[in-house]
Amino acid sequence: MIGVALELFSRRSPDEVSIDEIASAAGISRPLVYHYFPGKLSLYEAALQRASDDLAARFVEPHEGPLGARLLRVMRRYFDFVEEHGPGFSALMRGGPAVGSSTTNALVDSVRQAAYVQILSHLGVTDPPARLELVVRSWISLAESTALIWLDGRRIPRRELESQLVNDLAALVAVSAAYDEEMAALLRSMVEDEPADGPFADLAGRLVALAS
Amino acid sequence: MIGVALELFSRRSPDEVSIDEIASAAGISRPLVYHYFPGKLSLYEAALQRASDDLAARFVEPHEGPLGARLLRVMRRYFDFVEEHGPGFSALMRGGPAVGSSTTNALVDSVRQAAYVQILSHLGVTDPPARLELVVRSWISLAESTALIWLDGRRIPRRELESQLVNDLAALVAVSAAYDEEMAALLRSMVEDEPADGPFADLAGRLVALAS
Repeated sequence: MIGVALELFSRRSPDEVSIDEIASAAGISRPLVYHYFPGKLSLYEAALQRASDDLAARFVEPHEGPLGARLLRVMRRYFDFVEEHGPGFSALMRGGPAVGSSTTNALVDSVRQAAYVQILSHLGVTDPPARLELVVRSWISLAESTALIWLDGRRIPRRELESQLVNDLAALVAVSAAYDEEMAALLRSMVEDEPADGPFADLAGRLVALAS
Repeated sequence: MIGVALELFSRRSPDEVSIDEIASAAGISRPLVYHYFPGKLSLYEAALQRASDDLAARFVEPHEGPLGARLLRVMRRYFDFVEEHGPGFSALMRGGPAVGSSTTNALVDSVRQAAYVQILSHLGVTDPPARLELVVRSWISLAESTALIWLDGRRIPRRELESQLVNDLAALVAVSAAYDEEMAALLRSMVEDEPADGPFADLAGRLVALAS
């Protein structure tokens, strides 16, 4: 039943989905739904818990190969998730009566935290300096808003945005690194295993060409 | 009374502020508060309307001089606002029972829209391409999360973050410009009036030094 509810909550705004409709789609009676879930919010929260676990699992990536390619694979899975749950993802992230409980806020924060922990682990950092924490956490919100803007009309190909977000993280680290030695050392370690034909080298080459 | 309410809602989480306390601070009776506002939410919304108007007004900047310096002045006023309303700003942006009404969401969106419109006007763009809209709107969410992270412990000087956000916008435009001719033309027009000793030239010089 949670799977059926998640599918309905994903395809339309959760405000528009009724318990009757979920019972009908799951092929069970309305009283049986209420036996397990006292109201729509508790069923919504259970569905959101499943979606949150699913998304957090997609952030897990083997610690092998260049960092840029790892992050690009995660971004592809992130946009897969966003595409699968489009209307529900938008409704959740934009807030509203059906989705603004403290439980839903905590689930959204837990997914952000999972993304943050994964990125630090790939950077090999266990005790992040304040500037790194700021860059990574603010980039996560940049990735969320990029996905939301993409969903609103899909006017830019998602593949382009997946690559752009990888480059955006490198760019935000570089801006911080330009004024902080600790971040500069981190940037050097980030790019030292990048291949000469990889995305960061490509970006750097294009920026140099733009500047001249 | 709205001014008194705004001050209380700004200094602590709105959940913790009572109508009694607002009445007492304003020197009026509790029934009189209820005469004008049927409940705490409507008073909160009136206070938030005032704060939103105040913040949107701080985004207005004369169309004179280099773009980077203009944006830096706006960022200083933005952090002034965030500092003045710290706990209330955090509670609002992180969501929660007292602050998640459709009216409060609409007010937050109206401030984001005001920021977006101001930035486009300074860029001299009336019909923004999709890639520019994405960069500007996602940068606005980056600025919000940067302010929220700053409020949570203030471990980085705000002056540094004000400059960093100006540089972040340039960096995000540059990443997009590296792969799109229309954005490249926009980037050129953005930087053509920048002084050789201005923030963008300083950033570019430091990044070139880092890369070598």
